[in-house]
Amino acid sequence: MSCLPAKISTGLEARLAACENTILSTSGIAPGYLQANLIVLPSRFAADFRLLCFRNPVPCPLLAESASVGNHSYLKSWMKDIADDKVAHCIDIRTDAPRYMVYRDGKLLKAKCKDLTEEWTEDHVAFLIGCSYSFETALAAAGLLPNHTVWGRVVPMYRTNLPLCPAGVFTGSTYTVSMRLYKKSDVEKVRGITRPYVATHGEPIAWGWEAVRVLGVSNINRPDWGETPFTAEGKALEIGDKENVPVFWGCGVTPQEAVMRASLPGVVMGHAPGHMIVLDVKENQVIEHT
Amino acid sequence: MSCLPAKISTGLEARLAACENTILSTSGIAPGYLQANLIVLPSRFAADFRLLCFRNPVPCPLLAESASVGNHSYLKSWMKDIADDKVAHCIDIRTDAPRYMVYRDGKLLKAKCKDLTEEWTEDHVAFLIGCSYSFETALAAAGLLPNHTVWGRVVPMYRTNLPLCPAGVFTGSTYTVSMRLYKKSDVEKVRGITRPYVATHGEPIAWGWEAVRVLGVSNINRPDWGETPFTAEGKALEIGDKENVPVFWGCGVTPQEAVMRASLPGVVMGHAPGHMIVLDVKENQVIEHT
Repeated sequence: MSCLPAKISTGLEARLAACENTILSTSGIAPGYLQANLIVLPSRFAADFRLLCFRNPVPCPLLAESASVGNHSYLKSWMKDIADDKVAHCIDIRTDAPRYMVYRDGKLLKAKCKDLTEEWTEDHVAFLIGCSYSFETALAAAGLLPNHTVWGRVVPMYRTNLPLCPAGVFTGSTYTVSMRLYKKSDVEKVRGITRPYVATHGEPIAWGWEAVRVLGVSNINRPDWGETPFTAEGKALEIGDKENVPVFWGCGVTPQEAVMRASLPGVVMGHAPGHMIVLDVKENQVIEHT
Repeated sequence: MSCLPAKISTGLEARLAACENTILSTSGIAPGYLQANLIVLPSRFAADFRLLCFRNPVPCPLLAESASVGNHSYLKSWMKDIADDKVAHCIDIRTDAPRYMVYRDGKLLKAKCKDLTEEWTEDHVAFLIGCSYSFETALAAAGLLPNHTVWGRVVPMYRTNLPLCPAGVFTGSTYTVSMRLYKKSDVEKVRGITRPYVATHGEPIAWGWEAVRVLGVSNINRPDWGETPFTAEGKALEIGDKENVPVFWGCGVTPQEAVMRASLPGVVMGHAPGHMIVLDVKENQVIEHT
């Protein structure tokens, strides 16, 4: 029997619920707390992956990693002004996401499994990467609720042609982006609101119809992940719409794609999409007004 | 009369020589010491520029900045493990580069002037950005001396189509890159040698003939800055050469181009190309083995 409160309102409660398998998607769970993408790699690829994040901080904002090789319980914080012991109290990387994915030698081994206790070894290193859920709260608070949340849909995400700065074994990868439609006249306001969220992708990387071409998004109405975009009126998006323009942000799928593309030998793990690890850190603790 | 030693072997000596106007180009000066690009902006653009650097650390590695608005003598260090007072002892930003450029409202006001004492105001903020001279020493030490230094030429630099992640007023800018020719079989070695130089652009962002297309370099034999590339044999480069392939790095001209493109109102200043500010920090102090 679960001793969890009826409503999950903190990161710790969310991790307990994930560990007890009483929640699935973390969407809307523990509002105001940072949710993180998880990537677990064999230690020999850890330095290159860390460097990939540092060279590409907009799509790959590194929040924390295993304090040492093989460590699934203590994290080193990469967030400014957040001490190591304030990231996620009593975390166990192997159990505290609701669902996981496991790959061996670049091929899917297990989808949506409940824990990583069998697969985790003394040679694994976990990385936690920022997620754009955070700035959506801020957008909503400013009266700029993203359309996909209005219509209860998953944010559309796309592969692009925009190359990442390579790092070691991680070469040939490109940005993935999330997209939210906004009125052309709201774009500068949207940029300003999301700008301080540097730990969670920050301000958009491109906007407007010209951006679709520059990024090499092949069909805006057929996202590679998530659901087809709707306008504020709940209609299908017309290409070149003069009022509703696409606004693109760096997306946390980017580092996962980079890892998949590198076809690493050995066992690689991650959270299942939408089934994130919720931290003890609150969104407003990592806002940076440079 | 100058009291400088005949050979300039430290950052401090280089800055004294620059202040006394006894040197011009800093190429080959004070080997082993970091040389920095200088950008000086009105304070209202400082936060956006700092963010531009943080979002694009490969082409715009921020080393240090004015400790406070209007401060030309004390610097805040952004280099890992380098304290503020170890960046450049007794520096004066206004006099310690050999030559400067001054722009007003986006237009050139003075070229190659000796100091900034007339133009600097209490509202200016200085930024120092890493420069790729540093890793050239390491390449030479490994027997991979860049061709342009063999032939006493300036490294070729190019504009690209690769967009920077925008930040506030700094939108619509692209990477500039420096290029060095290497044997195809040496590329992995070259990547490995330059990888730890994260404060000075680090490993290449792209290589090989396909990279020319991806980056949108229009004519490799007509660089936008620097001189036409030569092969190791001192010959002109043939497009598609199977042995000599172009290797591209992020380039410190990038932030200058971004500032120029933003057409900022007010007085903006920088060092004259090749006339850098030499720091007290040694290249091997900022190597990072992630």
